[in-house]
Parts: sequence; structure tokens; C-alpha cells
Amino acid sequence: MLIEPGKLLAEINSPDDLKKLDQTQLVQLCDELRQFIIDNVSVYGGHFGASLGVVELTVALHYIYNTPKDQLVWDVGHQAYGHKILTGRRDIFHTNRMYKGMSGFPKRKESEYDAFGVGHSSTSISAALGMAVAAKYKGDNEQHHIAIIGDGAMTGGLAFEGMNHAGVSNSNILIILNDNCMSIDPNVGALKDYLTDITTSSTYNKAKDEVWKILGKVSKFGPNAREVISKVENSIKSFVLSQSNMFESLNLRYFGPVDGHDINHLVSVLDDLKNIKGPKILHCVTVKGKGYGPAETGNQTTWHAPGKFDKLSGEIRKKTYDTPQPPKYQDVFGHTLVELAEKNDKITGITPAMPSGSSMNIMMEAMPDRAFDVGIAEQHAVTFSAGLATQGLIPFCNIYSSFMQRAFDQVIHDVCIQDLPVNFCLDRAGFAGADGATHHGAYDVAYMRCIPNMVIASPMNESELRNLMYTSQLPREGKAFTIRYPRGQGVMPEWKTPFEEIGIGTGRKIKDGDDVAILTLGHIGNYAVEACELLEKDGLNPAHYDMRFVKPLDEQMLHEIFSSFKKIVTVEDGCIMGGFGSAILEFMAENNYSAQVTRLGIPDRIVEHGEQIELHAECNFDPKGIAKAVIALSERVLSKK
Amino acid sequence: MLIEPGKLLAEINSPDDLKKLDQTQLVQLCDELRQFIIDNVSVYGGHFGASLGVVELTVALHYIYNTPKDQLVWDVGHQAYGHKILTGRRDIFHTNRMYKGMSGFPKRKESEYDAFGVGHSSTSISAALGMAVAAKYKGDNEQHHIAIIGDGAMTGGLAFEGMNHAGVSNSNILIILNDNCMSIDPNVGALKDYLTDITTSSTYNKAKDEVWKILGKVSKFGPNAREVISKVENSIKSFVLSQSNMFESLNLRYFGPVDGHDINHLVSVLDDLKNIKGPKILHCVTVKGKGYGPAETGNQTTWHAPGKFDKLSGEIRKKTYDTPQPPKYQDVFGHTLVELAEKNDKITGITPAMPSGSSMNIMMEAMPDRAFDVGIAEQHAVTFSAGLATQGLIPFCNIYSSFMQRAFDQVIHDVCIQDLPVNFCLDRAGFAGADGATHHGAYDVAYMRCIPNMVIASPMNESELRNLMYTSQLPREGKAFTIRYPRGQGVMPEWKTPFEEIGIGTGRKIKDGDDVAILTLGHIGNYAVEACELLEKDGLNPAHYDMRFVKPLDEQMLHEIFSSFKKIVTVEDGCIMGGFGSAILEFMAENNYSAQVTRLGIPDRIVEHGEQIELHAECNFDPKGIAKAVIALSERVLSKK
Repeated sequence: MLIEPGKLLAEINSPDDLKKLDQTQLVQLCDELRQFIIDNVSVYGGHFGASLGVVELTVALHYIYNTPKDQLVWDVGHQAYGHKILTGRRDIFHTNRMYKGMSGFPKRKESEYDAFGVGHSSTSISAALGMAVAAKYKGDNEQHHIAIIGDGAMTGGLAFEGMNHAGVSNSNILIILNDNCMSIDPNVGALKDYLTDITTSSTYNKAKDEVWKILGKVSKFGPNAREVISKVENSIKSFVLSQSNMFESLNLRYFGPVDGHDINHLVSVLDDLKNIKGPKILHCVTVKGKGYGPAETGNQTTWHAPGKFDKLSGEIRKKTYDTPQPPKYQDVFGHTLVELAEKNDKITGITPAMPSGSSMNIMMEAMPDRAFDVGIAEQHAVTFSAGLATQGLIPFCNIYSSFMQRAFDQVIHDVCIQDLPVNFCLDRAGFAGADGATHHGAYDVAYMRCIPNMVIASPMNESELRNLMYTSQLPREGKAFTIRYPRGQGVMPEWKTPFEEIGIGTGRKIKDGDDVAILTLGHIGNYAVEACELLEKDGLNPAHYDMRFVKPLDEQMLHEIFSSFKKIVTVEDGCIMGGFGSAILEFMAENNYSAQVTRLGIPDRIVEHGEQIELHAECNFDPKGIAKAVIALSERVLSKK
Repeated sequence: MLIEPGKLLAEINSPDDLKKLDQTQLVQLCDELRQFIIDNVSVYGGHFGASLGVVELTVALHYIYNTPKDQLVWDVGHQAYGHKILTGRRDIFHTNRMYKGMSGFPKRKESEYDAFGVGHSSTSISAALGMAVAAKYKGDNEQHHIAIIGDGAMTGGLAFEGMNHAGVSNSNILIILNDNCMSIDPNVGALKDYLTDITTSSTYNKAKDEVWKILGKVSKFGPNAREVISKVENSIKSFVLSQSNMFESLNLRYFGPVDGHDINHLVSVLDDLKNIKGPKILHCVTVKGKGYGPAETGNQTTWHAPGKFDKLSGEIRKKTYDTPQPPKYQDVFGHTLVELAEKNDKITGITPAMPSGSSMNIMMEAMPDRAFDVGIAEQHAVTFSAGLATQGLIPFCNIYSSFMQRAFDQVIHDVCIQDLPVNFCLDRAGFAGADGATHHGAYDVAYMRCIPNMVIASPMNESELRNLMYTSQLPREGKAFTIRYPRGQGVMPEWKTPFEEIGIGTGRKIKDGDDVAILTLGHIGNYAVEACELLEKDGLNPAHYDMRFVKPLDEQMLHEIFSSFKKIVTVEDGCIMGGFGSAILEFMAENNYSAQVTRLGIPDRIVEHGEQIELHAECNFDPKGIAKAVIALSERVLSKK
């Protein structure tokens, strides 16, 4: 069933239609837009709180600015649903995040209104600045470039780098700081405290109060006191405004804070700002989940992306099952970390702003002095972990695979060159699913594998994850230890198995077989198990090995495999180019084996969003795809050349 | 000839000896330390200006703090010569940066006084914070952790991320901001302006002046004026100090600015700071090159690392040659970029703080509105370039290979997922030489190759670099275009050849041959030419192909090669694991060829500093190493299995 938009919203097929509305109609439009988002997300799922928080801002921006000529860059982008609905995508909004459907994030290929594709945080200022500088170079002084960035994303170093350049760029960039004190989880760090401080009691007010207080005590002024005080006040006001604001320090003219839910005020402020030249920042205070009671006043983290829910009761619909289900890998990580930390007091936990996403919140609650949310700051998370490791602690630094890309230099430079024993847990490795291309953990095996002093493993099930974590915290001299695992559930409802050390660089044989050997890395090995069952019906009986480690490889096992098999299929939920399969080819070349090797995994192109299994099927490494590869290889003549 | 240290310095074998000195002797010690650095660097080369600038700071830190228990983290680290000399390395200082000699940067394996290995910028706050948090967790409240960071490094996003966490950490970390307005080149950005502002006329002074001015005009106070004013002043002082400073905004207590060359004042300030709990920052103003006239007042960029020089005249010794020499690759880049930009007005240039190091300064001087130094901010450099590309401009973003690691996510997320045509020029690809492990551009082929929508090429000589640059700016739909080239000279004294398009993904045959084919990527191909000459004497005649592109590969040429040769040697100045050679193995597997392949390149371990040729020899891919590999392969039986 399609959701009906409200009367005004039904007529808006582009921002041009929006501009035809009288300003007095905007409050109603905001209501309708908000309702449309609530109606859709409650039925189809998706991100929720962030978009509700910027409904007024979105309407005001498209009402005042001349989009798409004027360019909006939404940081992260999960707050851009309103933007999508107002820019011609209302009628496909119900396909949001579905396979072949609308992307959950702004995407250049989807719409000319999406000036810059996003997904990861803190990119908007740099991107918008690039656009603004290009406009200036082309002599276009009328075009506007606006970055809309949350206070969480503002803690990412890239945002600071962008501001440092923007402040001296003499371009007309407008940064809108969407300050709601939240990332996915509550925001942390000194910047958050600062923003709260200037919001709840602005700097200027503080200065004024202070002067009043002092002058008030001096009773000797007589009738001229007010005049004196007023002059001092004005002086301080102009001084304070130009000097005491952190953003002004970076030469960004600071405006605000303003109420981000007062549509009329927003419209008038933006209209004024259009005419103010130079780099500037508008501080907007908003409420995540605004306009939907349970999201606004309940647990904002839960309502970041609640899944489907009953919009009247606010009850989130959870699937129920008759039989016990396997846990999510992230929860196995979270609980196991606490279990290990209870016995090993050197263990610490680090997450960059993903306590609930990584289940690090379990340790943060159980051991608040040993688990750290460092904010959206992957680089810092890794170098901070390196610092902890120099002191003999054992950091478990948990970062989503695709976000780890942002700390790549820190892994090389601060951890591995120094050979420090830091443990990295890469959640969301492989296809991330509905979040799409920006979030797929496609590249980690390739980009981590090339770094010396690095161990890389991937568990096929919950028990292996536990045992790899256990192994990684046993005393060792050096080496980083990376454990990658996917988003979603494992396969073991009874997952809490006793700990067992796994020899570093050892795999295990899942089954013997003939003719073809399937080598898998990680959870995807379960697909190979299914494939073998399918193949049995065709009379084929491949061997299957769960290699567990891509670095170091289990060379002994590989010698056995290459001595027995001339046909090999490698399977990984990661990029084929440079990944696990390539590591097998390297072993083969170094040891002068020859065999036919088919490598299955993520191909060398951008794969979009969809359910994980849909994407695995698209890329031919679902169970059927694996079976097909085995059949093709079985039929292939030994060597065509 | 070994350099004699001064009388006091000769007795200092560790900071314990330093602490025995009377404070009145420190001025002399600073003189001697400075002189020792000047004497050594003038004879042996090395970094220069940075270490001279922190002589007093270095002495004061080791005089006051209890190193190595108290931990100093030097950001970047090329300013740490004084630190090394005072901590037991005086007598090996002349081996600085030489093969098997002392490292030019702090290094944990070299000394217990080197708390954290460095080389890249902006890591010190995060690392020191990790140490401080570990100390707190262990219950050690006496240990001090000090990050010494330049104003240039402060613009790197990682530093900001670190401060954002430090401000709420309740740890005793001290950040010393070594403010000399310089990176290697003059520092840029809004932060620099801000620091200059608070240094030349401190915020407090501004506030005070303003109040004086206002109050001064009011003549009606009578005899109580002074009292009133003094109260207002004090009020403003405490207010301004706690609110108006950018660092105070991040909850770091701010002290300074202080004169970083007043050793006595530094000693007393540090002594005070030891007793102040919580995260804090000391703003030290220093002069890069302090105490050596030509460095202090001349071109500070030149004196960053001048090479050998005559210390009396200040004349930098340049090698002279009778015949014309090949240019540096970086200069070919710099001049060619201007040449292309003169004809193509879409071309822009971007460098993160490396104008002179990358020769982007040539374009910055010739076309100041089209070439941008964005400060130490690699992430921003890439996303800013992506922003430019969305507007149809053609950015040439030049980043040293090892620094590109810091913008890895931006290459994936902001450039390649969106399929934007950004050109990346990776200077210092392969072994960087004397700068060592942190600076080797070892991993770029592996980490860039796994990204879709990416072209990767490497020129074998100057002419190829020019033609690749020419090709990369011709109109194309999408795809990033990466050109990697090494530090140092090419091979063509007459380098300014006319432009010629190179088909994307086409290699060239250097020579025909028998039995073995050598496949090379980039400048290292010249070693293969030499190897072929050596082999000729042994009666061997390998073929040699300059593949030029590692992505896409020249498949047609590879089909020819694999059809004709069963023995292949691949050579690359980059990591073997996942690199160019692995790409060849992937082609071989995908096309069902079998051949014996020996891959030469950087092995899977950390290789230290030394001349490039020394490191190539160590890793067996100098001309002799290549020749040996060909011989070994020639002698090998076709297939042992």
C-alpha cells in the first residue's frame, strides 16, 4: 500500500512547486512532510530521527535557495529524506533502501539535487568548499554552496580541516551546524560541551552578566552609571562576538544559535544570509526525532533507525521466532569482550561513536573506566589505541570495516610500523546491506593484508569469533590482530561456547572431497556448506576448508590442498582484487604450484544497496553461485594452454 | 671526522646528567646543543630548522620532567634531534638517516626515551592521550604525558580529534603548541591566522584595551575610577581567559603565549604546569632555524632540510656535474602541470602542505587562483578535489604516496564511489630513502588497486610522466587517475618531450627476448634494463615489458606474453603483497594460464631508512637482484608439481 502524501505535499514535484507556496503555508507543509516520513518509515523501515529533526531546515533551504543550481551537501545523508521527497522522489520513497530502489543517502546519479554523494561523516564542508571555489574560479558569484553538518560529524577531523581552509578561502560557503547533541548515540567530546554551553547561555550573555555583576556592586557611579555600563556592554559585545567564538577563531562568521524548528525564522535568517559574503556558519538547534513523541522523548539511539513500527503506539515491530535464533555477531563481540575483560584487566575497549552499533555499549556500561567512545574520530580511535598499547594495555578497537578506511594511515603508521599489539574488530565486513555502497566493508582484506606486522582472521561462526577474540588477547610480542565479521546474525543459537585458543595462521577442514576444493574466509563459509549440499544432488563432492586466517595463511594446509587438488574455488565476502583469493594465488606462485583457481567475491565495480543475500546472489557468491562455480570448474579442461 | 660536542654537552649521556646542571648553566648548554646540531647537519645533512627551533624547549623538558618515565611524544619528529642527542645518542648522531644508522625520527625500538614513533604529522595528541589514560587506569597519577606539536601539524584533522577527546578525558596530558608559523613551507589556513592574532596581541590585552578605551572616555568617575576599572578588568580577564580562547572552548586550559627561546622562563613555566591537573596546552612561540642566521632569516623552507652546507658562509653545497642531469620527477610534474594548465583552463592543482616538496609551488606562483595549498590536511585535499571535480574542473591532487594513506577513505568514498574524474599524483612512491619506514610509499598500488573506478599508472621516465599527465587531463567520463612516481631523478636530461596520448591500460615492449619475460611497473623498469645488460654477459636474453598501467592491465599484451613465456619476473617498487605482481597473478588465474612467476618488490616487513639503491639492493630488486631472479627462474625446472 502506498502512503498518501498530504494535500500540499502531493503537489510538490520539485522545489519550484515549493517556491509557489505562500510562506504562511510552510508550517502545514512541514507537518505533511513529517507525517509522510513517519508513515513511510513505520511501514518500510529506514533512518528516522535524523530526517524528522531537519524537516523545517529542509523546507526552508529549498524555499529560499535556488536548487539545484545552489548546491546542498548533506553530511552523512541519513537526514536527507525530506530533501529527497521534495526533489522529485516522493513517489519512489517507499522503495527507500530496497534492492534496485531509492538509495537511503544522497547520490549524484539519483538526482541533480544531490550535489554530493555521502554516507560517511564529516565530508560536507570540504566538498561544498570545492564547489564554492570552483564557482568563484568560473566567475559565478551568484551560486550558493551549503554544507549541512551535525554536531557529531563536526568532531571528525576532516570537518576541522575543511573549516581551516574555508576560513581563508574568501568563498561564499554557508555551513549549517545542525546541533542536536546526537550522533547515532549521544554525542561526546569537548566540542559537544562547548556547543551546549553557547546554546544554553550564549557567550555574549555571560559577558554581559559578568560586567553587570561587577558594575552593580560599585554604587559610586551616580546617575551616569547606566551610560557607562551601556558603553562597556557594547564594547564587550562587539569584542566578544568577534573574538570569543570558536568558529570565529577560524574566521567563519558565526550566526545563531537559532531554533531549527521555527520555519518562519529560519526562512528569514537564510534569506538574510544569502546576502552576506564570505564563509559563515549558522548554528541551528534541533531535536532528533522532532514531531514524533516516542522518538523525540524516548531513546533517540533506538529511534535513529528503528525498523518498522506501529506509528500509533510507537511499538517497534520485532520479528518473533518459535525457536532460539543465532545472535548478531556484534552482540557476540560485545558480550565476549566483557567476559574476557573480567579475567584480563589489561583489556580496554574503544569505539568511534558506535557504542550501540558495535555493541561496545555492553562494556561501556559494565566497565565505564575501561571502554571509550571517542566520538566520530576513527583516526584518533586507532592512534589512541596505539598509545594504550605502548603502556601494555590490550585495546580492542572496534570500527566498521568501511569506516576503518578512514584510519588506514594510523593502522600503518602508528600501529604496524611500531609493531604494537592492537586488536581491531571490523564489524560490517563484507556487504553491509541496505546502507549500500558507502557502507560495504568491501576492501578491508586487500588494504589490511598489504601491511606488515598484521594478522587478519575472520570467523565462520560465533564460536570462532569468541575463540579468535580469546586468542587475540593472549600475551604476544607484537603484531596487530584484525578480526573481521559481517553485519547480522551468525549460525549458532547456543553461541556461548568455552574459550579455546586458535593457532595463529591455522585453518580447519570442514569436509573432505574430490576434484575441487572450496576455500572460504569467514561467515561466508556457511554458504559453501550449503553449496556442497546442493552439489551433492548433482553428484559432486568438493572439499571445503575454512581458512580462518588470510594473514598469515595456513601454509601447511595449503600445501596439502595444492598437492591434492588442481581445481580450487576461493570465496570471500570482500573485493576479489587483492583480497583473500589473491593471497591464495600468491601462495601458489611462491610455491610453484599450478592449479585452476576461480575466485569468488565482490567484483571490481561499485555494488549498490540491497539485502545482503540479494547482493551475494548478484555477485554470484551465494550458495547457488558457489555451486555453479564448482560445476564450471569441474567441467573445465585441465589447462587450455 | 667526528664533531666535538661542547664542554657541558660532552658530559650529558642521559637526562640524569642534564638534571645535575645548575639552571644557570642551561643557556650555555642550549648554545652547545644548537652548535652541535649545526656542526653535524652542515657536514652530514638532515633536517635542520625544526630542531634548532626547539633547543630550549627540549632542554627545559628533559630538565623538568622525569623522562623516560614521563613520556614525550614529538609530533612528526624531525624536530627531535636535540632530544636524541640528550638521550644517549650524541655519539651516533653523525649516522643520522644513514643506512643502518640512527633514524631521523623518534623510534621506539631505538630508545626508551622515544615514547612513540613518528614521521607523519598530527598523531602526538592522540598517542599521548592514550598513554595518559592508561596511566590513570593503572592508578599512576605521577606520570606526565606531553605532546609537542607544531602549528602546522595542528591543522591535521587527527589533532583536532585528539583535542576533542582530551578535553573531556580528565587526564593530565600537556600539549605544547610549538608555534613557528611554518610547516615545511609557510603554514596556511584560518588556524594560523588565529594563532598569529593571539600571539601578536593577546586576547586578554585586546579586551583590556577596549575597556580602558571606553572607561577612559568617561570622566565622571572621580577618584574611584581606578578601582572600578580594576574590578572590571579582573572580571574580564577571568572571563576572557576561560571563554574566548579556541583551545579553552575545547576544555583545554590554555597557557601562554610564551617565548620558546627563553630557557629560564620555560623551565619555570613547565615546573608550574607539572602541578596543574587536567588537560592543558602551552602555547610556545619559536623561530624555525633559531640561532643560525641564514636559516632564521633566510628562506625557512630551504633550511628545513638543506642538505650539506658551509656553516660559516651559509652556502648550501650543491653537487655540480659536467653533463646535463635528468630532472627530479617532482619538477617534471610541476612544470608539466603549468604547461598543461596554460592550455586547459579546467586544470587546478591541490597540495596538502607540500608546495615545495611536490613542486606544486611552480603552479602556485604561475597561477595563484588555480593552485591551492590546503595545509596539512590530506583528507580535505581529496574531498575538496572531489568537490572541484563535480563542477567540471580537473583537479591534480598531489600527495606523497605514504601521506595518501591518510586520505584513503576519501579516495574511496568521495571520489571513486561517485566515479569522479580526479587525478592523483603520488610522489615518493616506492622507497623514500633516508626518511625511512614511515615515509616509504610502499603500499599505494595494493591499497589503490582494490578500489573500483580507478586507473593506476606509473611512468618509467620523464616523458612517460608527461604523457600520462597529458592523458589524464583529456576529457573522460569518470574514473580517478592515479600516477605514481618515485622520489628523485628520472633518466632523461632532455625531458621536455612533446605530449602524446597514452592509451589507458596499454604497456609497451622494451625488448624482445627468450625464455623469461620481465614485467616492470614504473621507474624501476630502468633497473630491469640494466639487469638485461648484465644478463647478456651471461648469455641470457629476457624480454622486458614496461607495463605502465597496473589498472587496467594491458590484457592484450599479457595474452601475448603468457602465450609466449612460461617464466615471468615482475618487478615493482612497492609491496609484493597485493601489488602489481599479484595483479599479474590474478590475470593469469582468470585466463587459465600457467607459468612460473617470481614477484620482486618490497617484502612483507618494515624496511628501515637508507639510500633508495641500498634499500632496493637489500630487497633484491636492484639490477643485480633482478638479474639473479631471472637466472634462478631460468634454471628452475618447469614445474616441480
